[in-house]
Amino acid sequence: MAKEKKQKIRRPRAQTPRGFADFFGADVLARDAMLAKITEVYHRYGFAALESPLVETVEALGKFLPDVDRPNEGVFAWEDDGDWVALRYDLTAPLARVVAQHRNDLPSPYRRYAVGPVFRNEKPGPGRFRQFYQCDADTVGSASPAADAEICAMLCDALEAAGIARGDYVLRLNNRKVLDGMLESVGAHLVHRPGSGPSVSKALETASSTVDRDGILRTIDKFDKVGRDGVFELLTKGRLDASGAFVDGVGLDDKKANLVLDFLTARGSDNTQTLERLSSAVGRTSKGAEGVKELGQIAELLDSMGFGPDRIVIDPSIVRGLGYYTGPVYEAELTFEILDEQGRPRQFGSVAGGGRYDDLVKRFTGQDVPATGVSIGVDRLLAALKARQTNGVAASGPVVVTVMDRDRMPGYLAMASELRAAGIRAEVYLGNPRNFGNQLKYADRRSSPIAVIEGDAERAQGVVVLKDLALGAALAAEIESNADWKAHPAQTTVPRAALVSGVKQLLARER
Amino acid sequence: MAKEKKQKIRRPRAQTPRGFADFFGADVLARDAMLAKITEVYHRYGFAALESPLVETVEALGKFLPDVDRPNEGVFAWEDDGDWVALRYDLTAPLARVVAQHRNDLPSPYRRYAVGPVFRNEKPGPGRFRQFYQCDADTVGSASPAADAEICAMLCDALEAAGIARGDYVLRLNNRKVLDGMLESVGAHLVHRPGSGPSVSKALETASSTVDRDGILRTIDKFDKVGRDGVFELLTKGRLDASGAFVDGVGLDDKKANLVLDFLTARGSDNTQTLERLSSAVGRTSKGAEGVKELGQIAELLDSMGFGPDRIVIDPSIVRGLGYYTGPVYEAELTFEILDEQGRPRQFGSVAGGGRYDDLVKRFTGQDVPATGVSIGVDRLLAALKARQTNGVAASGPVVVTVMDRDRMPGYLAMASELRAAGIRAEVYLGNPRNFGNQLKYADRRSSPIAVIEGDAERAQGVVVLKDLALGAALAAEIESNADWKAHPAQTTVPRAALVSGVKQLLARER
Repeated sequence: MAKEKKQKIRRPRAQTPRGFADFFGADVLARDAMLAKITEVYHRYGFAALESPLVETVEALGKFLPDVDRPNEGVFAWEDDGDWVALRYDLTAPLARVVAQHRNDLPSPYRRYAVGPVFRNEKPGPGRFRQFYQCDADTVGSASPAADAEICAMLCDALEAAGIARGDYVLRLNNRKVLDGMLESVGAHLVHRPGSGPSVSKALETASSTVDRDGILRTIDKFDKVGRDGVFELLTKGRLDASGAFVDGVGLDDKKANLVLDFLTARGSDNTQTLERLSSAVGRTSKGAEGVKELGQIAELLDSMGFGPDRIVIDPSIVRGLGYYTGPVYEAELTFEILDEQGRPRQFGSVAGGGRYDDLVKRFTGQDVPATGVSIGVDRLLAALKARQTNGVAASGPVVVTVMDRDRMPGYLAMASELRAAGIRAEVYLGNPRNFGNQLKYADRRSSPIAVIEGDAERAQGVVVLKDLALGAALAAEIESNADWKAHPAQTTVPRAALVSGVKQLLARER
Repeated sequence: MAKEKKQKIRRPRAQTPRGFADFFGADVLARDAMLAKITEVYHRYGFAALESPLVETVEALGKFLPDVDRPNEGVFAWEDDGDWVALRYDLTAPLARVVAQHRNDLPSPYRRYAVGPVFRNEKPGPGRFRQFYQCDADTVGSASPAADAEICAMLCDALEAAGIARGDYVLRLNNRKVLDGMLESVGAHLVHRPGSGPSVSKALETASSTVDRDGILRTIDKFDKVGRDGVFELLTKGRLDASGAFVDGVGLDDKKANLVLDFLTARGSDNTQTLERLSSAVGRTSKGAEGVKELGQIAELLDSMGFGPDRIVIDPSIVRGLGYYTGPVYEAELTFEILDEQGRPRQFGSVAGGGRYDDLVKRFTGQDVPATGVSIGVDRLLAALKARQTNGVAASGPVVVTVMDRDRMPGYLAMASELRAAGIRAEVYLGNPRNFGNQLKYADRRSSPIAVIEGDAERAQGVVVLKDLALGAALAAEIESNADWKAHPAQTTVPRAALVSGVKQLLARER
């Protein structure tokens, strides 16, 4: 034993694994509070909570991430008694497994919401973690546009419940079918591979046309950057980019290129005009006509629920993620500006998105099961609320009852108990009480609003001193003795019996 | 493509991994509600939330589970870019890592609570899952008995907040030091291996005495089964067990065996008497005297906070887990009886436990950091609340607005919106509306309290029918048409404009 003691001990490193992070205090509470408000809305819309395990079989998950083209990468997987299991990478793949496994016991349609951590085995970066939260709601087993409309309405209500004011966000609505109609019009439509879906990579799909479909989609995505004329050039004969290099064109003729542009720029002054323009751009194909009709239905249904064009905008330029969905898609965007790291104003952008994907459980059962759902980017929305300072969680620390006399601990604990019984967050200082300055430094570090002090003199008089730390925080660290302390103005003396009401008064003053 | 379609497709199995489970609806809400109530108490006591990642390096976790003797087993681990990482098996090992990693930024003492899933790579059994919740609170960096007292008080408040009535639980308090004192008295005390602690297995400790310490501890644990005389025999010369087999004794002389028994049976009619008896049983050793003094201090501190002997009982027979701790230990036990699977009444037993472990971060930093903390058995406490039916979560489903006429969907959605705006959980039926019976079956499956019906006739009259499903649930599944439906008594007709007030009235009647 003595020998062991003398051996040089190699100590383990105290370090989170690469790409994982600890979250403390107010950050945890802010996220919990936001998620509680959102899920309360989901619940009110009739959605039921589901908590599936964090571990799934690789077989059930599928080997492919929805938005990663590298098979077998992107997940944390290990062998468990001969079976390969992995941490879930999203909440949709587990939903598919749950629906297939419990299909005889679940109501149909099945409306479920789920909140929790998901994991990506990817290279971490700044603000990019390998464990993060998702918050999803999906309706499984309904092909009705009313299901899409309800989820759009619910997303609006959820954002407002979380603290995003009406007018600070817009929900953009599009439909994969109008994109398909457009692609068909220019001879670049895609034949779907059976069984493909959300959990099967795009890489597995096979283009069936000689027209460069991916080239068209890539070009569409550049609309924001290169504008109408730039897109036209890229769709046809090619273009010199800013660096002077020539970028090959997709090779469409002018008529087809204009058709793509008509689609892209179909957004009108209101939803009705947008639908008319979309109809003339893609309405000749049956897919396109179906898509336009669905968009019209959804807009009408939303209108009947009180969700008008101030919140819901049909926007054909929403292309991102369209490849993944089979029908209506929606994206919630925050419209206010924030300052970036360089202090420049920029739009906050998208915080949630979703849409219809009609082959959720086909991998498992062979059956087509229509589904539509939304996923909120929890960390992005939290960041937005922080930027707006509307997260609504008081970051205030506890009232700290200081210890002037170690033998009076029972009395100090009783004070904390009284405060707690009145609903006030409170604690007794539990470190070494000898250095009173340390107690105040501690209170400062805890963002404590008030320190309670009872020394011999106070006890003799039957009073306690309440130190308003919110007022005097800056000076607190310098005060070393009870004598200094009393000279300080931001404090008040109340009868011991009036401890609770005195603290309440001070707290009210701070608000 | 056509060829692919015809290939026989091997479908993945839709199955949770072995030992993992899905949780649905009311079960998720009940757990969330309970944890929210408990953490609200923790927060009020000044504890701060901590959410550490679910993945830790194996190096930081240590290779050993606290209560498992098999090294390298018990955790889910995998290699990540050369480093071994694992799912956390409890919330204490991550706390140690967090305190060591962030020691310059955390207040001291650091009071933190944490809630979340932990993972054990063990053979699953009935009701024994490989992923389950823990809910912990610890004070790190305080050696004061006031820290232990606060956690005991907090545990009582948390249990009551969760729904366990005062009188339905008792917090049993003991101290590792009195056990050590007793073992020292009989010459079986243990020399601690440096660096051992909560995350290091008992198997690593080394007994330093020729007296069979483990034998004594094992025997003590049998007190409930074999009684005073049985324990005396087992501590001395051995005993014939019920089957007629002879069990070897530990070999203590009668005096020492009586000392162990005095310790075990020291519980008196009140805490004062218990302390006196304990003092005479173990007070001759310095360890024992220290332990008795601490117990007295903690009981006094708790008393000053209003936690008297109706809730706090000093009980030397609490031995379980003592090996793991270094000072005071506490265990909350529910005192009411429940019926087991065979319908026999039995005590519910322990739902939470904790204690002082003074070498939390020593593995990392070499420094002694005193800590004390409690862990609530989330699933056991939930089961207890269920048994008492006091979980307080309404399991009621949403009001279901049925679809008599598909073209009237906007009107039905508007009804659901009105109900939600009034805070009532509501949804429109989104399945195929053709078979009305299916809609009622769906409402039944969702435990819906009310179905709202508006057909042509109702619309013409400007009314809606409210069907009280809570009253008529049994019959609902048999009703196939709107005509049958109207013959049914448990329904009421209200003006369309009175939809919300009518639903509110029905819901109030059900409560």
